[in-house]
Amino acid sequence: MENFVFNTPTKVIFGKGAENQVGALIKAQNCKKVLLHYGSGSAKRSGLLDRITASLQAQGIDFVELGGVVPNPRLSLVYEGVALCKKEGVDFILAVGGGSVIDSAKAIGYGVASGGDVWDFYNFKREATACLPVASVLTIAAAGSEMSDASVITNEDGWIKRGYSNELSRPVFAIMNPELTMTLPAYQTASGCVDIMMHTMERYFNKSDNMELTDGISEVILRTVKKNVAILMQEPENYNARAEVMWAGSLSHNGLTECGTDGGDWATHKLEHELGGLFDIAHGAGLAAIWSSWARYVYRERPQRFAQFAVNVMGIAPGGDTDKTALAGIAAMEDFYHSIDMPTRVSEMGITLTDAQIEEMAEKCYTSAQGPLGVVKPLEKADMIAIYSAAR
Amino acid sequence: MENFVFNTPTKVIFGKGAENQVGALIKAQNCKKVLLHYGSGSAKRSGLLDRITASLQAQGIDFVELGGVVPNPRLSLVYEGVALCKKEGVDFILAVGGGSVIDSAKAIGYGVASGGDVWDFYNFKREATACLPVASVLTIAAAGSEMSDASVITNEDGWIKRGYSNELSRPVFAIMNPELTMTLPAYQTASGCVDIMMHTMERYFNKSDNMELTDGISEVILRTVKKNVAILMQEPENYNARAEVMWAGSLSHNGLTECGTDGGDWATHKLEHELGGLFDIAHGAGLAAIWSSWARYVYRERPQRFAQFAVNVMGIAPGGDTDKTALAGIAAMEDFYHSIDMPTRVSEMGITLTDAQIEEMAEKCYTSAQGPLGVVKPLEKADMIAIYSAAR
Repeated sequence: MENFVFNTPTKVIFGKGAENQVGALIKAQNCKKVLLHYGSGSAKRSGLLDRITASLQAQGIDFVELGGVVPNPRLSLVYEGVALCKKEGVDFILAVGGGSVIDSAKAIGYGVASGGDVWDFYNFKREATACLPVASVLTIAAAGSEMSDASVITNEDGWIKRGYSNELSRPVFAIMNPELTMTLPAYQTASGCVDIMMHTMERYFNKSDNMELTDGISEVILRTVKKNVAILMQEPENYNARAEVMWAGSLSHNGLTECGTDGGDWATHKLEHELGGLFDIAHGAGLAAIWSSWARYVYRERPQRFAQFAVNVMGIAPGGDTDKTALAGIAAMEDFYHSIDMPTRVSEMGITLTDAQIEEMAEKCYTSAQGPLGVVKPLEKADMIAIYSAAR
Repeated sequence: MENFVFNTPTKVIFGKGAENQVGALIKAQNCKKVLLHYGSGSAKRSGLLDRITASLQAQGIDFVELGGVVPNPRLSLVYEGVALCKKEGVDFILAVGGGSVIDSAKAIGYGVASGGDVWDFYNFKREATACLPVASVLTIAAAGSEMSDASVITNEDGWIKRGYSNELSRPVFAIMNPELTMTLPAYQTASGCVDIMMHTMERYFNKSDNMELTDGISEVILRTVKKNVAILMQEPENYNARAEVMWAGSLSHNGLTECGTDGGDWATHKLEHELGGLFDIAHGAGLAAIWSSWARYVYRERPQRFAQFAVNVMGIAPGGDTDKTALAGIAAMEDFYHSIDMPTRVSEMGITLTDAQIEEMAEKCYTSAQGPLGVVKPLEKADMIAIYSAAR
């Protein structure tokens, strides 16, 4: 078992009508001016933004707006946000949306408070020294960014997608009303649930002696999401299922699922980042398209672990041959992904990967990893090419 | 499913040698003077206090000491601590010990920062308005006070034991090195594990629609503690088992096990508080002595819930008659308590309860509850007498 630090200062306000508390919560922060940061459509169309601005105005809170965040949030908008915050004297950022908006808010927060070129933090040049306080009204259960220290930004110059983690960016509060996620299209709901499961699985498939308590919690999160996303494919307005998935999204990525472990593998995420940089796909769908190819490529390094996953998460009968059980678990995961209309190969997203594209992604991924990628089986560039090819 | 707030700001530093970071952690708090608060023996004998004072001195941190906290921590020492802190200008309290020391530290923190008679908060007279920052080096896995908003103090004037919960008292950080718990006597280890399990079970046995994710996490915590305390009865220096139990103690009581629920029943805890006020017994042992009598008295109000507990925690075969399964789970819990030398009746602690004592405890308990106690079956005074009598 590994030593660990568990640090989840984000205050979660969870449930029906929670968004109506946003004005009072920000008021308590004693900030001068707020950046209201959001995406490109649904928060405005649904009337959520109007309710939030009304809540801010009722508390006499001064704010400026910056919309337009897109999935795989762009560095150019981050630069725009940094400039706007400096000009307007913004000292608090409220993200209204999903992980992309929150990630963009964190990047703006670093840029304003740490100074210099914000891309430096994502490009391994230096560490952030400060971040503006960030909070969110969450509208998509997926990324877990509402409680995490992580953010992912895409630099359009070369379409480089990079993640950066720093405790400074843990949000102050997260407002989570499952009702706000009810109108999400099925594809986005399913893609979000894959992301939640993968945040748990990236940590679950590790190389350390494990902590039973962490393993058990991870398995509960995975079973709960698996069960409830299936319900949501039939009943998108099932409140309890939306709530289970939404809370699972936060717990999967707030640190709870890595206590006592080595932090996990993360190869699937990094391989998907290159795919998501090159093609504008839903992050969760990209993860689903790659995971089983990664899993079959590496499972022999920890067959017992993959067998435990098969039995405790996928419901494979225990007691059989370890390798067979492990492989049955991977196949069952593919069946599950297909059952919620998620791909298990890149081609299922309508993308025909060329050898040159695979070479380019592997090269970028290896550079981004700054050496062999992952811990279950540290991947060299040739391994990445093999996995991308299998996932083609 | 109920709306909820999840707020766990306490930073946990977990693992071998974690206590050596205490000086640096306090230094970062920019406080003027620290109260070093501890118990009456083991932390001093083991050399832990010497290492902590060395760590404080190495950082040039000014501190005063107050030892002498006993199990069921006393109001008189809290008063002494409040006076000392005011005289010395203390603005940060470091508790070195278990739940009793941390609870005493929280009470002192309220007394200094909120002013007036600190007993007022425990006696329903008023709410605290502030609390000095509190942190701990934990030496016993049991109370969960290291991350919780709760504290329990005993007023020697009438031997009244009362709990008070307020978010203001959530500790700033908790240093948790499982090695520090290895020298605990088996009885204290077992008693602590009962407390951990009961913190989870008090919330698990509730009256609301539940959250599957919370149920699953609670069941994992219970199974993990049950398994690992049995290991510790044979191998008290098993690091991994100590670590599983220690982390379970925090998760059981930091809010995670009540997300989406009504907060739980808590009757067993309140009934034990009266027993612990009258007789100086280990809190966990007192809980074990009462729980099954409470459970048999109330299970018919939620037989399905008790049956779920029987199957998912106690390993009773599913599918049978609900009431029989529920009762088999309660009996299995009694067997488990006996297997770790915990009592399931008060007499097993060498105490012969008189009718007058039962009457007195029920009267105090009813007064303390300010009305019917618990949610599974709200207990009137006559119900309390029946449960105490069954637990005799």
